Amino acid sequence: MVRVALVVEYDGRPFVGWQRQDNGASVQACLEEAVFRFCGIRAGVVGAGRTDTGVHATGQVAHLDLDRPVDPGKLRDAVNHHLRPAPVAVLEARIVPADFHARFSATSRAYRYRILTRRAPPTLERGLVWHHPGMLDEELMHDAGQVLVGLHDFTSFRALACQSRSPLKSLDLVQVRRSGEIVEVNVRARSFLHHQVRNIVGSLALVGCGKRPRGWIDEVLAARDRRLAGPTAPADGLTLVEIGYAGWNSRTGC
Amino acid sequence: MVRVALVVEYDGRPFVGWQRQDNGASVQACLEEAVFRFCGIRAGVVGAGRTDTGVHATGQVAHLDLDRPVDPGKLRDAVNHHLRPAPVAVLEARIVPADFHARFSATSRAYRYRILTRRAPPTLERGLVWHHPGMLDEELMHDAGQVLVGLHDFTSFRALACQSRSPLKSLDLVQVRRSGEIVEVNVRARSFLHHQVRNIVGSLALVGCGKRPRGWIDEVLAARDRRLAGPTAPADGLTLVEIGYAGWNSRTGC
Repeated sequence: MVRVALVVEYDGRPFVGWQRQDNGASVQACLEEAVFRFCGIRAGVVGAGRTDTGVHATGQVAHLDLDRPVDPGKLRDAVNHHLRPAPVAVLEARIVPADFHARFSATSRAYRYRILTRRAPPTLERGLVWHHPGMLDEELMHDAGQVLVGLHDFTSFRALACQSRSPLKSLDLVQVRRSGEIVEVNVRARSFLHHQVRNIVGSLALVGCGKRPRGWIDEVLAARDRRLAGPTAPADGLTLVEIGYAGWNSRTGC
Repeated sequence: MVRVALVVEYDGRPFVGWQRQDNGASVQACLEEAVFRFCGIRAGVVGAGRTDTGVHATGQVAHLDLDRPVDPGKLRDAVNHHLRPAPVAVLEARIVPADFHARFSATSRAYRYRILTRRAPPTLERGLVWHHPGMLDEELMHDAGQVLVGLHDFTSFRALACQSRSPLKSLDLVQVRRSGEIVEVNVRARSFLHHQVRNIVGSLALVGCGKRPRGWIDEVLAARDRRLAGPTAPADGLTLVEIGYAGWNSRTGC
């Protein structure tokens, strides 16, 4: 048996999310089907992050087991061939130790959230950004977000449906910066609660547009009450960009 | 009568191109319909560049005449409202002198061509890049392209169907650079021949992947024979990014 890790990129728009579900096409099922068409094996594909409906990825990682040795480059190309026309691509395949687990071996996850701040709606980036027609002060958002860095009870930023046993998470990075009309929010943590990133972005946007003061994020965090935080930002703007493991990460490959 | 210039962004994928045609939806017709729904006027919309099927724009300019004064911001927002769900947006509307002509007053046009150089096919940028699975040496492409700068007979890089009276054009900029997996070709000229940018990119790519030597571009240019140049690069990667006028351009607005 050989265990293989795949770095996977996908456009989340046509999918119900990463995870196989009864109500529509999932990225996981697409990959499993492509692997089957390639080698005839019904291999289960285990992902590092279970992205929601409409959420994108440039650095998702998944592992699977094959019953024979395989050339990683050939596996990547063959799976990509069988993935067509689904907007899912394997960027890299690598042989990993038998005890590697895409989800449980991950030491960090990084997401990027992109907000288009202009009056006109998106065209080329429709479905890939959150359209926020009003102005956003990215420096204010960055400053306000720094209170979230560190180990906290994130109950206020957690979806009511979240199944995690504990609301305690340690956030390593909250970075907000602007590139032209795009405000980009980068966050990194070992793991996240359900909707945590989108709820943080929805709340930071309320600060950025002046509807809430900078210190409000701190109050919301301390209150541990989901009703106090901002709305959940739409899935469109969210991309899973990197999974980190001991010795390598999915963004740089090293 | 008031003449208005619109800076227009669009995703070229669902369109037969800028110009109104019998065989499908055009950006021009979309805009004319949105203007009609806004103010009841059947205004002809004149574009600066007639982009082909599948070609995108972030800085197209068009002008039209209205029979009454209009607030530019309100016009932009109203036209955008009526453009939905077409992937076309007015980024800016500005009142211009009555003798302004989007096409004939233009002093420069700039295009960007994006090439994705990796084995895996595009997902999030499908239709927005040319997928070139092999390596491309962008520095070699840049060097080879410099012979095209200046006034030349571009017969070798002109579509056979091109209706321009003269094959003489003056190219102001050919810049090739890399950003990660993307090789970007930027070109600027007062005006272009039909398929000139895509034929230049198709030829530079043959140099970049090592199939032709650096000096080959010079030979092709001198031969004035379309059969000698490389294939026409696909529409997907091409975006009209800027139209320049005396005193302002569509990219920066100043």
